[in-house]
Amino acid sequence: MRIVVLAGGIGGARFLRGLKQAAPDAEITVVGNTGDDIHLFGLKVCPDLDTVMYTLGGGINEEQGWGRLDESFTVKEELAAYGVGPEWFGLGDRDFATHIVRTQMLGAGFPLSAVTEALCARWQPGVRLLPMSDDRVETHVAIEVDGEQKAVHFQEYWVKLRASVDAKAVVPVGAEAAKPAPGVLDAIAEADVVLFPPSNPVVSVGTILAVPGIRDAIVAAAASGTPVVGLSPIVGDAPVRGMADKVLAAVGVESTAKAVALHYGSELVGGWLVDTVDAGAVADVEAAGIRCRAVPLMMTDVEATAAMAREALALAEELR
Amino acid sequence: MRIVVLAGGIGGARFLRGLKQAAPDAEITVVGNTGDDIHLFGLKVCPDLDTVMYTLGGGINEEQGWGRLDESFTVKEELAAYGVGPEWFGLGDRDFATHIVRTQMLGAGFPLSAVTEALCARWQPGVRLLPMSDDRVETHVAIEVDGEQKAVHFQEYWVKLRASVDAKAVVPVGAEAAKPAPGVLDAIAEADVVLFPPSNPVVSVGTILAVPGIRDAIVAAAASGTPVVGLSPIVGDAPVRGMADKVLAAVGVESTAKAVALHYGSELVGGWLVDTVDAGAVADVEAAGIRCRAVPLMMTDVEATAAMAREALALAEELR
Repeated sequence: MRIVVLAGGIGGARFLRGLKQAAPDAEITVVGNTGDDIHLFGLKVCPDLDTVMYTLGGGINEEQGWGRLDESFTVKEELAAYGVGPEWFGLGDRDFATHIVRTQMLGAGFPLSAVTEALCARWQPGVRLLPMSDDRVETHVAIEVDGEQKAVHFQEYWVKLRASVDAKAVVPVGAEAAKPAPGVLDAIAEADVVLFPPSNPVVSVGTILAVPGIRDAIVAAAASGTPVVGLSPIVGDAPVRGMADKVLAAVGVESTAKAVALHYGSELVGGWLVDTVDAGAVADVEAAGIRCRAVPLMMTDVEATAAMAREALALAEELR
Repeated sequence: MRIVVLAGGIGGARFLRGLKQAAPDAEITVVGNTGDDIHLFGLKVCPDLDTVMYTLGGGINEEQGWGRLDESFTVKEELAAYGVGPEWFGLGDRDFATHIVRTQMLGAGFPLSAVTEALCARWQPGVRLLPMSDDRVETHVAIEVDGEQKAVHFQEYWVKLRASVDAKAVVPVGAEAAKPAPGVLDAIAEADVVLFPPSNPVVSVGTILAVPGIRDAIVAAAASGTPVVGLSPIVGDAPVRGMADKVLAAVGVESTAKAVALHYGSELVGGWLVDTVDAGAVADVEAAGIRCRAVPLMMTDVEATAAMAREALALAEELR
């Protein structure tokens, strides 16, 4: 079975770990969000790709969900001693090495997809990890500070400001001109199932879909019978992790399992899983033409996550 | 008193620490060798400048003479886990931060002299540290391996090969086209004393002198009465540190205190200190027109080094 998953960072990575357990023989292609990539200290940092790679490769800091296990922060402290920041972004020593290798390879002319493959040669994540695009796309968030409009990098909004101010708009800068990375469209066309994990619908999955060609490829696959199933990142009207409500509001979508399903729409998503606490939304989602089931959606451990993945695959079979 | 010192790495840095103690009120300008600079992992590494900066700023690993105190090697180990080397160059985590800051500033268009000043704002070495040039100069060593001639970067010869093969030639690539960094020629012209510490006469002091204009400026200063005094890096016919004999042989100079003095020549060096074990060389050096004294030249501690610096300054007074 060939499965394509559009993944953001922590949520996507954890879901993938469950999916690998649920479908050990599947060929899984992950299309990773690169809209939250950032240049720091002259280095190219790809937080979502790395979170997937580290999580599936056994190198993740389990507790925080991002960054490396047994991490130290000597380089960052020394940079701060030179007065060089930003201090709000937690780049650890082990992590630095990944960014140094990536930056060197990019500087040598390799595209990000080739670099990601090279990094994965070490981590052996057990999936084919593709960036959504080899072109630079950078998610910016429009905010208002002291009555003044400004746009900040998504990482500054998310990590530094901790989404403490309203997002007026979320703009994947560069997306219009970006091309899907090699292999992305083919993987979607050849997929037996496409899954949207409980990743952020705006700044993770939404950014991937903003790369011209990717949404169309999924719609075309769905139209030709490939089941496309999503899992709600909203449980009980609140995001499971993080501050997804802030960026949902920016695109005029309520923080409910139902609203996110309708935001994707039946053209894109044929099946939708909501948590059991949101069972009341099932009828409304089905009324919109999306097959819907209420199942436990908390990724408390790998077992629970694998059960979610099995439910998603079962719903996909129903749709076939 | 304005003192100009041409410095390499460990020997130069340690001598400078003694000089600062011997002449606490002097304005010391250090012209640092950059011929052993190397690009590693996409970063610009300046070993000699950093050794001076860390030594005088209290950040040096005293025992090995280079690198940072309390250093760790996480980044390097992680790079090796990706298969990225070289492994033979000991870049520590704290040290990495220096090279990241330097590389970013260079990338932003600042010359190395401005970068060095910015780094020294943290370390407060108590001297004005100038690179010999803002232009790239890279010392290469011609060697013969399995009957084949090849040229390797000085660091590869020194650190990886540990000078285990003969050096056929030492070439400061790029020196011909390099200009002295801003301030270097003025500092020499305005100096009350110019000192050559017991640094490597070929790959440290020799490389500095290979930058067009620097040798001429020192010769002109000497001709107009500025004392120029050197300290022998050879004691008892062997280099005090390292493998200086190998690179001396490449330029046809014996590893003796006398031969190094004659290699510099009386036009350049008016005074020369040899160790007491080399007292027999004094007459020969003086016969070549260079005032010579035999004094203890082992930099066993700061006190002993300060005594050496005082002897050098006393000889300078004699020459005035």
